Amino acid sequence: MELRRVSEAVVRRLPKYYRQLLLLESAGVERISSGKLAQQMRLNASQVRQDFNCFGGFGQQGYGYNVRSLLGEIRGILALDRPYKAVVVGAGNIGGALANFEGFERESVVVEALFDIKPELIGTTISGKPVLHTDALEDYIREHDIDIGMIAARRSVAQSVADRMQTAGVQGIWNFAPLDVVADIPVENIHMTDSLICLCYKINHKLPDNDDIE
Amino acid sequence: MELRRVSEAVVRRLPKYYRQLLLLESAGVERISSGKLAQQMRLNASQVRQDFNCFGGFGQQGYGYNVRSLLGEIRGILALDRPYKAVVVGAGNIGGALANFEGFERESVVVEALFDIKPELIGTTISGKPVLHTDALEDYIREHDIDIGMIAARRSVAQSVADRMQTAGVQGIWNFAPLDVVADIPVENIHMTDSLICLCYKINHKLPDNDDIE
Repeated sequence: MELRRVSEAVVRRLPKYYRQLLLLESAGVERISSGKLAQQMRLNASQVRQDFNCFGGFGQQGYGYNVRSLLGEIRGILALDRPYKAVVVGAGNIGGALANFEGFERESVVVEALFDIKPELIGTTISGKPVLHTDALEDYIREHDIDIGMIAARRSVAQSVADRMQTAGVQGIWNFAPLDVVADIPVENIHMTDSLICLCYKINHKLPDNDDIE
Repeated sequence: MELRRVSEAVVRRLPKYYRQLLLLESAGVERISSGKLAQQMRLNASQVRQDFNCFGGFGQQGYGYNVRSLLGEIRGILALDRPYKAVVVGAGNIGGALANFEGFERESVVVEALFDIKPELIGTTISGKPVLHTDALEDYIREHDIDIGMIAARRSVAQSVADRMQTAGVQGIWNFAPLDVVADIPVENIHMTDSLICLCYKINHKLPDNDDIE
């Protein structure tokens, strides 16, 4: 499917539509208007219609959206209708959480192996996934056609891990180390600390709740 | 310090300024222009000046900012110049990662205890922090004047945990469960899955890299 370039802000909202539609589907809702969907998501209806128009529009004016088919379309656009193979570098707590993160199941992202340098971890398994020495990272990525490299390693090594992952051929990097890694492939940096800092700010400045991390 | 209401977008950029200024300070940089700071952060200079003006402005025109004093000001605005006591509900992998997350040290957020319902975990310690039964959550929060409740529990119980934390008197909630919890106090929801979904999208639509989670 060839799409025109959509803005980062629209891309960021797509997972939210996806989640909301999953909820609606599991609640047995078959059809929803843009107005109602917008209300549930605290957006406005014209925003919702505009977002969906970026992808060719799915709705019938005045008739609303079919939840299941909209969900299917968005799954396709988000490219969640194919499997992804991932590795995690860093087999500590965050790495371990990634190895069996419940959120992945529906997204068909499978962690195949973890990598670390600590001798006591090498050769063990975490949630059934082998922990291998980081020296084997590039070979493993090439041999197993790994799509996504996840970084749960220390700040000091995160960029070099990203470089190695990119060189070995992953298609995207999901980084949890507390610095921005840079690459020529897509990267998502999860800034846990930034979110915590925003929370501290809001606590002290009594801002209202529920501003999501997007 | 009384501040006029600033936009969510500005608040979201503040931790980024803070991190960049920390890097500059540890690199021994004493003074920086808004233009150079903007360039390093891939913003434009007028944006940087405008953001800082929200907080009264710190710079001298044509002379740049003193890194250390700007850092101090931003620390104060972000309210990182006071300690925060936190508890974590859910002593699994993510909870364990939160109990000894290196990113917290500089922000003076201290996890005091974890809570879980699994008998085999109760009475143990994780990174030196006690794991208590979730039944004791409210009493603990009250007795220890806990500021921040962190949720690393299952999706199905996350909202009720948030309700209990709020009732017991925490000032803010940091939620890692894969749904938005709602409260009358500040909440930050970390949507790990949304970020992963955006990465899948970018991999398939060949978007450029490095769009941070803000």
